[in-house]
Amino acid sequence: MKHLKTLAFDMDEVITDTLAKKIAVLNDLFHRNVTKEDFLGSRNLDLSKEQSKILFNEINKEGFFRDLEFLEKDTRAILEELNEKYDIYICTAAMEVPNSLQDKYLWLKENLPFLNDQNFVFCGDKSVLATDYLVDDSLYQLEEFKGEGILFTAPHNQLNNEHSFTRLNNWQEVADYFL
Amino acid sequence: MKHLKTLAFDMDEVITDTLAKKIAVLNDLFHRNVTKEDFLGSRNLDLSKEQSKILFNEINKEGFFRDLEFLEKDTRAILEELNEKYDIYICTAAMEVPNSLQDKYLWLKENLPFLNDQNFVFCGDKSVLATDYLVDDSLYQLEEFKGEGILFTAPHNQLNNEHSFTRLNNWQEVADYFL
Repeated sequence: MKHLKTLAFDMDEVITDTLAKKIAVLNDLFHRNVTKEDFLGSRNLDLSKEQSKILFNEINKEGFFRDLEFLEKDTRAILEELNEKYDIYICTAAMEVPNSLQDKYLWLKENLPFLNDQNFVFCGDKSVLATDYLVDDSLYQLEEFKGEGILFTAPHNQLNNEHSFTRLNNWQEVADYFL
Repeated sequence: MKHLKTLAFDMDEVITDTLAKKIAVLNDLFHRNVTKEDFLGSRNLDLSKEQSKILFNEINKEGFFRDLEFLEKDTRAILEELNEKYDIYICTAAMEVPNSLQDKYLWLKENLPFLNDQNFVFCGDKSVLATDYLVDDSLYQLEEFKGEGILFTAPHNQLNNEHSFTRLNNWQEVADYFL
């Protein structure tokens, strides 16, 4: 498969709807009524230091990343189609939440069984990746990346237009761009 | 630190003496008297399919990779010195032994606390790495790697001289080459 272009996808907020579970957990913990709109333009809420720590501990518990939903209902089908034309890599920043490592592996094996697990990359800084493309919601990671970075829209980056990356807003746009 | 050259090290058989623990486990399981010399020129022993499966299950148990010894007594000190002059990455093939992920992370944090955990990469195929150098005992990984590959001597590759990589036989040679 080495002749194919290599196409890397971030996991959280690109393949999986991690934010939805984070919101459910924090609403439950702190009796809040937060929605995704509260994350427009920012990754963080008005949590106290203590609350942020409690929330992190919940997210870093084994199991948090095991039962995430796909971000969109056609994410899986489009990945399966892309997998015919590209050498697909899943490149996820996992080192800040070390207890997510095993969950992320098991999630990928269960939910995207057609992918080659030799192409799973659990890393920190994505400047280490040598793929042709990276689709990611993090401007920081895209700025470090050496190939062609594609910004995938998420609430936290939605208001930021001062950057030099192609923006794709949803999986249909990913399909249109790459297929 | 982005101005420094990026230097990636494999973990098993380069930083950690994984083979020593594997031998201890298999001698215990199968009442054998195997030594490292039995792995000269090969990664595999004369195990039956059933024995190979039992051994893999032991290696894939949580804990196996948690208490490995450094390969040599000066491995840690040389890595600490290299860390002053290079941007060090630890790039380990972990997807074939998925239960090792957490153990490897915890081992690195405990035993090499001076390293940046954003530079840990748990992957499969190392063709995905964009570092300048990779020190690895696997000829397969070095052949895929896009930068300058350095073969680190291990019993299984010791007899193979038909390759195009610089060979370093021990950590003192790593220090001499890179410092």
